[in-house]
Amino acid sequence: MLLSVDALRTLGRKVFVAGGVPDEVADAVTDALVLAELDGIPSHGFSRIPFYVDQARSGKVDARAEAVLHMAAPSLILMDAACNFAFPAIERGLAEALPLCRRYGVVMVGVRRSHHCGVLGHFAEKMARQGVICLAFANTPAAMAPWGGAKATFGTNPLALGCPRDPDPLVVDMSLSTVARGKIMNAGQKGESIPEGWALDADGQPTTDARKALQGTMLPFGGAKGAALALMVEILAATLPGARHAYEASSFFEAEGEAPGTGQSFLLVDCVRFNPGFADRLEALLGHMLAQEGVRLPGERRFRQREERRRTGVELPDALWQDLCRRAEGGPTVA
Amino acid sequence: MLLSVDALRTLGRKVFVAGGVPDEVADAVTDALVLAELDGIPSHGFSRIPFYVDQARSGKVDARAEAVLHMAAPSLILMDAACNFAFPAIERGLAEALPLCRRYGVVMVGVRRSHHCGVLGHFAEKMARQGVICLAFANTPAAMAPWGGAKATFGTNPLALGCPRDPDPLVVDMSLSTVARGKIMNAGQKGESIPEGWALDADGQPTTDARKALQGTMLPFGGAKGAALALMVEILAATLPGARHAYEASSFFEAEGEAPGTGQSFLLVDCVRFNPGFADRLEALLGHMLAQEGVRLPGERRFRQREERRRTGVELPDALWQDLCRRAEGGPTVA
Repeated sequence: MLLSVDALRTLGRKVFVAGGVPDEVADAVTDALVLAELDGIPSHGFSRIPFYVDQARSGKVDARAEAVLHMAAPSLILMDAACNFAFPAIERGLAEALPLCRRYGVVMVGVRRSHHCGVLGHFAEKMARQGVICLAFANTPAAMAPWGGAKATFGTNPLALGCPRDPDPLVVDMSLSTVARGKIMNAGQKGESIPEGWALDADGQPTTDARKALQGTMLPFGGAKGAALALMVEILAATLPGARHAYEASSFFEAEGEAPGTGQSFLLVDCVRFNPGFADRLEALLGHMLAQEGVRLPGERRFRQREERRRTGVELPDALWQDLCRRAEGGPTVA
Repeated sequence: MLLSVDALRTLGRKVFVAGGVPDEVADAVTDALVLAELDGIPSHGFSRIPFYVDQARSGKVDARAEAVLHMAAPSLILMDAACNFAFPAIERGLAEALPLCRRYGVVMVGVRRSHHCGVLGHFAEKMARQGVICLAFANTPAAMAPWGGAKATFGTNPLALGCPRDPDPLVVDMSLSTVARGKIMNAGQKGESIPEGWALDADGQPTTDARKALQGTMLPFGGAKGAALALMVEILAATLPGARHAYEASSFFEAEGEAPGTGQSFLLVDCVRFNPGFADRLEALLGHMLAQEGVRLPGERRFRQREERRRTGVELPDALWQDLCRRAEGGPTVA
């Protein structure tokens, strides 16, 4: 089903409100998921809504809880997301951080008792549009083992960087697993094998069997170095703001059980104050890259797709669309 | 030749002083190189001294220049290393940053007109011993192409993280190339081939020919994601503090030409103020890792080697030792 951006937003909002989610929260979450759809990242888009809403219904997500802001220091903002969705707490923390970044030059926001934050790069992008550099980190429920180990300890733990630039910021955004877990699930459903380097089995041995991989752990990209990065992000996103570690966090998909309680953190730097020539120097660096045939900038494709889909609309899978329409009317939902 | 730590320090200091390097600078540089030797990283140890001293003699390194501190904002310290060695400027910037970190919670130090900074993780470790988290970034002369490209644009661009812990900090420290360039040079000298994934030839094609690799570019670990990390570090370490980009920087080894002018940056976070339970939570995370057979912590081996070599001394290659002894006496040097 092809939907315009407005139709998409109206549908998403209705589903959340029908699920008992307050208007403001419904808006914040819907806007984030719409942007993921526009950018061509459906895994972080409307496919999440049934899971999100079911968690709000079960109380695993406390959609009426107010995030609490605590100034841990003049440049350290600690947000308690209060087991609500991640978006309102992150948005508020970053909004409070911006003037502090301009005053002090650098500020950090940490979020605890949080949930899935969607496309991490979107926050970095948004801050970059305000003229500051943003480094962002998030942990997710356990998916990857430490190097040499067999037990899922870290999430796929994305990191992102946003840098101010015209007309669109430069955005680097990556999860630290070689591939998304969805790719292994797809292979498993089709009975296909997976390349070595994607996953380990439950004993910590490399496997090309997708079903064994799903019982095991995802591999970080780049081997031991990637695993060390996963540890780094786990510390910055979770240990530092006092969130749950990946191995303590419940699923972002199941409606039962305790809240995931994962974490995020954001470092904002006033790059123009640090270096008034920052914009020109960034253009020089990116120009050196783009002068080479075959090179494109990280994040470029997302912006291209976003622009295109704003015009053409977004294609939702029919089954998902029908499920969301039923949910929007408050009708019975697909189990 | 086996040397005690004291003998090593005395030798290094003498060589620098004989090369016209002021006492204080000689001390700072020697201490950094001694620690690299103790940690079992000879590529960043005394093997660098002949190159360092020759650059001081030629004036490529201005060993008498004073680093200049500029407060770009209350929490942003910009150090102009003034084309001297990197160590005095970094040490001073970090020393000034510590009280600001305690006051504001987070602070950033950038260094421009800098040089090779040795083992990046050592700065992160030193800050972690003061009770703060330190994220560190450095760029180096051009070695890696952007993803899809063929021209060396980024350095091997290390990043490091130091976290307070007893008795030693947790230190993550990695360069972003798959392997160090020295490994390819070794293979080239022996006429051996190299594994795919280490390097590209001058046309940007994968190669297993070490000699072609040396005319081409190093590959980042982790493919496109690693290349995006290299861009991220280049921006944070060089674009941000106004240093030269990798593709503009002269060699850390040759004595002729302009100063490299590379950059470094450091983010310090008061983790205990952010989260009074930080230390316990970090132990929980590391404990979960170490409970798994076959897992060890990043940086662990360095500390073990350091402790051992403090007792046993450090083995220098005879040719290097003889060269350094001649240089210490102000005698003729090996060309």
